[in-house]
Amino acid sequence: MSLLESITGPEDLKRLDATQLPQLAREIREFMVDAVSKTGGHLGPSLGVVELTMALHRVFASPHDKILFDTGHQAYVHKMLTGRHDWALLRQRGGLSGYPSQSESEHDLIENSHASTALSYADGLAKAYQLRGESRSVVAVVGDGALTGGMCWEALNNIAAGKDRPVIIVVNDNGRSYSPTIGGLASHLANLRVTQGYEHALDLIKKTVPRAPIVGNLTYEALHGIKKGLKDVLQPQAMFEDLGMKYVGPIDGHDEEAVERALRKARGFGGPVIVHCITQKGRGYAPAENHEEDCFHGPGAFDPVTGEIKAKGGGPSWTKVFGEEMLAIGGERRDVVGITAAMLHPVGLAPFADAFPDRIYDVGIAEQHAATSAAGLAMGGLHPVVALYATFLNRAFDQVLMDVALHKLPVTFALDRSGVTGNDGASHNGMWDLSILQLVPGLRLAVPRDGARLRELLRDCVAISDGPTAIRYPKGPVGADIEGIDTVGGMDVLARHDGANGARVLIVSVGPMAAAAVAAADRLQAQGIGVTVVDPRWVKPLDPALAGLVAEHSLVAVVEDNGRTGGVGDAVGRLLRDAAVDIPLRTFGIPQEFLDHASRGEILTDIGLNEQDLARDITEAFAKVTNIEAPHPAPAD
Amino acid sequence: MSLLESITGPEDLKRLDATQLPQLAREIREFMVDAVSKTGGHLGPSLGVVELTMALHRVFASPHDKILFDTGHQAYVHKMLTGRHDWALLRQRGGLSGYPSQSESEHDLIENSHASTALSYADGLAKAYQLRGESRSVVAVVGDGALTGGMCWEALNNIAAGKDRPVIIVVNDNGRSYSPTIGGLASHLANLRVTQGYEHALDLIKKTVPRAPIVGNLTYEALHGIKKGLKDVLQPQAMFEDLGMKYVGPIDGHDEEAVERALRKARGFGGPVIVHCITQKGRGYAPAENHEEDCFHGPGAFDPVTGEIKAKGGGPSWTKVFGEEMLAIGGERRDVVGITAAMLHPVGLAPFADAFPDRIYDVGIAEQHAATSAAGLAMGGLHPVVALYATFLNRAFDQVLMDVALHKLPVTFALDRSGVTGNDGASHNGMWDLSILQLVPGLRLAVPRDGARLRELLRDCVAISDGPTAIRYPKGPVGADIEGIDTVGGMDVLARHDGANGARVLIVSVGPMAAAAVAAADRLQAQGIGVTVVDPRWVKPLDPALAGLVAEHSLVAVVEDNGRTGGVGDAVGRLLRDAAVDIPLRTFGIPQEFLDHASRGEILTDIGLNEQDLARDITEAFAKVTNIEAPHPAPAD
Repeated sequence: MSLLESITGPEDLKRLDATQLPQLAREIREFMVDAVSKTGGHLGPSLGVVELTMALHRVFASPHDKILFDTGHQAYVHKMLTGRHDWALLRQRGGLSGYPSQSESEHDLIENSHASTALSYADGLAKAYQLRGESRSVVAVVGDGALTGGMCWEALNNIAAGKDRPVIIVVNDNGRSYSPTIGGLASHLANLRVTQGYEHALDLIKKTVPRAPIVGNLTYEALHGIKKGLKDVLQPQAMFEDLGMKYVGPIDGHDEEAVERALRKARGFGGPVIVHCITQKGRGYAPAENHEEDCFHGPGAFDPVTGEIKAKGGGPSWTKVFGEEMLAIGGERRDVVGITAAMLHPVGLAPFADAFPDRIYDVGIAEQHAATSAAGLAMGGLHPVVALYATFLNRAFDQVLMDVALHKLPVTFALDRSGVTGNDGASHNGMWDLSILQLVPGLRLAVPRDGARLRELLRDCVAISDGPTAIRYPKGPVGADIEGIDTVGGMDVLARHDGANGARVLIVSVGPMAAAAVAAADRLQAQGIGVTVVDPRWVKPLDPALAGLVAEHSLVAVVEDNGRTGGVGDAVGRLLRDAAVDIPLRTFGIPQEFLDHASRGEILTDIGLNEQDLARDITEAFAKVTNIEAPHPAPAD
Repeated sequence: MSLLESITGPEDLKRLDATQLPQLAREIREFMVDAVSKTGGHLGPSLGVVELTMALHRVFASPHDKILFDTGHQAYVHKMLTGRHDWALLRQRGGLSGYPSQSESEHDLIENSHASTALSYADGLAKAYQLRGESRSVVAVVGDGALTGGMCWEALNNIAAGKDRPVIIVVNDNGRSYSPTIGGLASHLANLRVTQGYEHALDLIKKTVPRAPIVGNLTYEALHGIKKGLKDVLQPQAMFEDLGMKYVGPIDGHDEEAVERALRKARGFGGPVIVHCITQKGRGYAPAENHEEDCFHGPGAFDPVTGEIKAKGGGPSWTKVFGEEMLAIGGERRDVVGITAAMLHPVGLAPFADAFPDRIYDVGIAEQHAATSAAGLAMGGLHPVVALYATFLNRAFDQVLMDVALHKLPVTFALDRSGVTGNDGASHNGMWDLSILQLVPGLRLAVPRDGARLRELLRDCVAISDGPTAIRYPKGPVGADIEGIDTVGGMDVLARHDGANGARVLIVSVGPMAAAAVAAADRLQAQGIGVTVVDPRWVKPLDPALAGLVAEHSLVAVVEDNGRTGGVGDAVGRLLRDAAVDIPLRTFGIPQEFLDHASRGEILTDIGLNEQDLARDITEAFAKVTNIEAPHPAPAD
């Protein structure tokens, strides 16, 4: 039996002798590489926190003490040390979540995978325990990348003010978020790291300075340098000092014993304290350590021996098409600039960045700043394209609304990973964007159904100069183009079949639902039901011609890969009401719930967004509305 | 002609001799006190920046250079110095906006009144000018209160990284947001202020340290203190130094000449630099200077001689009812805690705070942290009530969704100033909350129609322990209670009138629209139209009994004080579609546009949310739907 297999929880870990820990660390890394090589997953971040997580669970008493993992993809080691050993179905239905999950373990707290939240939870928990008179440690583990997010600043400002509330902030500093961390903070953390060299000199100075005058040939620069290094284990340091927080570090995050020592000291302090651990993303697995782009941040399945990541099938992705078209547009338009929030490669902007390095801005994990600095760039005469995962746009709703749209600024938001993304669970599904963007006055919103439309509509977006635009597309392969057979107004008609009795269904198919909608229409036709499939291309504003088209049908079905609440279905309903076109409407989308992790295909089947279920549900609705009496009383005359 | 009257723009200001400036400052203050005493407005913040704004416009060349005012209520002086002298209709229809307004002046940029955005705009503008090769200064004026918002941190992190991009950040440090600024940053700024006393000692040290050894009886503490004070005009300082930014200050913000000097030095530096100005909110008007609560932050009309603020008519406000009930609940429930984002008094939590000082948390202008620290408090066993202005909830959408709701935590959001607020313009109207909250799985949302319902529903909210709740109510007097005449499910029937021919209208009246809805129903009755008025009390989830009630009517009209997109009207439409109840629906709410400033009453009349317009529009819709054929083909048989 391996050491790892013997760990059913933190108590087992605590029973181990310190000399056994390097062996356990090796076993954890081997197990993780093996498991993730089969399923894919967030390997790099977790390889970097093996010793750190072991130290956390040896020093603190979870679940009595609360250990909070920010951006939970760094929690794989935590899962192992709290007794989770079956990784065969990681991120798959019935298997372990890729993030902490309260339903898996009493040791898990934050399920949200959006970054920079843990310090705020910690502030709240510490306040609660203070008020209730409970003595518990609250520990938040946060990456240096996540510290670029504004929430961390808001939390630090509050935590620092709670001098008598013990909050331990462990900064897991690997110098990267997805890519290397940017900005003034990153430089500052890098400065702190190099001060390690001062340690020895400092020991001497600490012993002498309080008692004796300084003599010798000290210039101002030397004095300055010494002050920067002058620190003790609980000595305030640098910007954290300025906020009034104690600072411990920097600590070698792969020296388990050193981390334990630092954590014990921090625990004993009784107030807010920062423990600064330097770690290496991908540590202990050479292909990850040497992987320049992202240190195996979240690879798919790979060969555990060579580290070769297995190619994904299905042809080019939506992301790739977006990236290619941005590159082409960038060559034609010198005023087009790109903005990414620490996700240059995942959102497909790397080719643009390579070609136009002075026109790409990585703002860190800072979606609010991404949006409002884009507003500034647009005020300065440029046309920014802000490329984000759809789910992260939620962080910038107020900024899109009040900073961009209120000022009618030409900013384009390109939203990748929209709709059901699946394996990363509830907080990664991009099922909110079509709803929140409907609320933004003056914003125009395009949903391409295929690669050709992505290219066309992206060009339309950057050609619009009098207000904001957005375009959204899903994860995965883009598939074949679906050509229209006709147009109505600015909309594409994708299919039109006559039925048996003149009554017809109109399917309004939003973006990539086109293939399923056209296939469902074929099934309706086979049953003798007349059907038209229309792709509106722009879902805000909707084409006014839609109301007229609807009036030629007996039932409208809107199909969208977005939450059913507030999306295109509701927008169509509003359009029809305002035009007094009271044709029955049915809307098909994602139920407004938090979805458990599973594959995109499994989830789409669960929720009825496939050709079979759509055909069945639309047929049933059609039968009902064409066979019932008018629901309101007959006219008086 | 006064000096002030001679100022048609910054060029006139520049022509003045420095000796004339104190006279101009006096005239500006006198004019502002006189003008705002009649109309109400943001007096305190603007009184504090008279000299600062004069210096800005003497040093920089607006509009070529860009001067950005964060939270634009501090921009009154800027308006005067850019030639706006008619203040009779300040914040009223046809008069000056209370915030910068691009339609008023080419000198105005940011119209959004939400805090902490200016640095992000500045970063974007500086990037644009760098890329376009334009030489312009970009200056952002930001309060110390706004610096507690996370957006500022995100922006500072990016601005600091742009070593070759000149961005001048003027920190207008009056130690307050609405109330005194809180947190570690506030302490840090306070520390910087007291270092002013070190100035003289430092001059000496700066001259000696670089050249000679330090001798004498220096302890570590003295060394430490000296380092904290060691600064030159462009010397990096403190936390800003750690981010890599230059720091100038602290400067007496009421010494116009000193501010000019500092700004000129900052302008000449060519990189990002902070100019730290100490100002006094309410400066120069004794009643404001001495006003403990908020230094006349935004009073209504007042007596300019005595400073006595005129009482508002109309009886107790919604805010007051909320505050009283929170006080009562706080006495009964030790687990209920309050959270405010720097707005203790305006949101009505002051009585609660006075009674339970250990159970109130002011987190600064930090709505994201307000929500997620509330999640932490709830995880720790408490029931937080987060009281915000409705419009500011937009800042925390992702946190409400992913941090609170995903974890099913019992947090109550109390949203004041919902619906049309009017005088403060587009960014203050609370017309988004009913729409974004509809998207949040598991959140329950109450809209009280009167004071009695506010008390009842607030109690219902804090009694719910298995997920988040929200309750929203408007600005102004609460008015008389409106008792129901019956109930259907959990809904209150407010009126029921038989009509002439059996066909009936159902009016679904949301919250405070009840009075207008009942009055409109009376008008319908007078025309022989049967009508029921129902108040659902909870608008999420809607009572399933609503579909059955609708089915007894020929037309449904939903009336809500919220944007028409995504609100209760759309929710009712979805409920009916899903129940296959295809009764015609019409929805009445705020058009989904940015509304110009005017009074609430004027705007409600403009947009048809009053009894006359509602009665007319509903009558017309009723006539149409009851006199036309069923819109779909007759059944086949």
